Amino acid sequence: MSRWEPNAQGRLQRAAVELFLERGFEQTTVAEIAKRAGLTERTFFRYFSDKREVLFWGSEALQETLVRAIHEAPPSLAPIDAAAAAVEAVAALFDGRHEHARLRARIVAAHAELQERDLKKMASLRSALADALRRRGVAEHPASLTADLGIAVFQNAFVRWVGGTGDQTLAQVARDSLRELKAVAAGGT
Amino acid sequence: MSRWEPNAQGRLQRAAVELFLERGFEQTTVAEIAKRAGLTERTFFRYFSDKREVLFWGSEALQETLVRAIHEAPPSLAPIDAAAAAVEAVAALFDGRHEHARLRARIVAAHAELQERDLKKMASLRSALADALRRRGVAEHPASLTADLGIAVFQNAFVRWVGGTGDQTLAQVARDSLRELKAVAAGGT
Repeated sequence: MSRWEPNAQGRLQRAAVELFLERGFEQTTVAEIAKRAGLTERTFFRYFSDKREVLFWGSEALQETLVRAIHEAPPSLAPIDAAAAAVEAVAALFDGRHEHARLRARIVAAHAELQERDLKKMASLRSALADALRRRGVAEHPASLTADLGIAVFQNAFVRWVGGTGDQTLAQVARDSLRELKAVAAGGT
Repeated sequence: MSRWEPNAQGRLQRAAVELFLERGFEQTTVAEIAKRAGLTERTFFRYFSDKREVLFWGSEALQETLVRAIHEAPPSLAPIDAAAAAVEAVAALFDGRHEHARLRARIVAAHAELQERDLKKMASLRSALADALRRRGVAEHPASLTADLGIAVFQNAFVRWVGGTGDQTLAQVARDSLRELKAVAAGGT
């Protein structure tokens, strides 16, 4: 029962997303997710605290990647370009996960409770990004505004990527979003 | 009991903010707010559905003002400048309300539940702004990015204004925030 299971986490995530789409998020139980994945409830709870967490797993890693990328960006980079480098580093975490991200986005879009959780996650990422920029020496308000721009690029790119075919990586789409954001800010359309 | 009370709404808002700061948000009841304002509970519920609503009253008016300003902006204005005009129109709604906004912000900052409500309100404003820009003919993604920039300017200006002395209007601070946002997007600090 408690033996090591190969890729248990990935199997639980896939099983959860399948069941949420088939039966609805509310109607699906942890027992059903574990069963579909061929695992026990005990194994489920080794990875996730509840069924909602399956959809938000990886948020901490994402934030750590973002902050580390800001620290590692060359000092000569302008704040907006350091933020862009951090967004690309985060985007790389989604390589090979287009189908999962697409299905997850459908589930989140259908539930106010999950959308709120997404909003909070983005607000927390935004604060972490602003703080990391300040530690780089960027002043209070420019750091805050740069973080807003970085999160806007990430969210815009994510929506485009999830709604697309997945032929491009999220990082490639993020570069397009950044280019458009700069054009819009400069007074273009 | 049900007679018209002069400026009942403003009196209830002031009483609520005072009590939330004195006793805490959770500990304050609607009965206490009404009593402090010299009004009845029945009068309270004519204006607000619950005590939380006292802090969020005016959100609809804010959104309507934003959308109307986008519709009324001259067609020659670039999307970012139409969004800036809309932010200034919204900012004007806060003229003479610096002290109330400052106290309200302190209460919201101390309660996760109220911060979440604020996040949702901002997400809804953002959607309304993006939709209004699309109706103006701005393409899907530039509209979305412009809305992100407009909301970033509004939020940045609000934090600065609320944390300041109130000598400047919110609209004046928003013009500074817009200028900084444009500088940051162009690769400055």
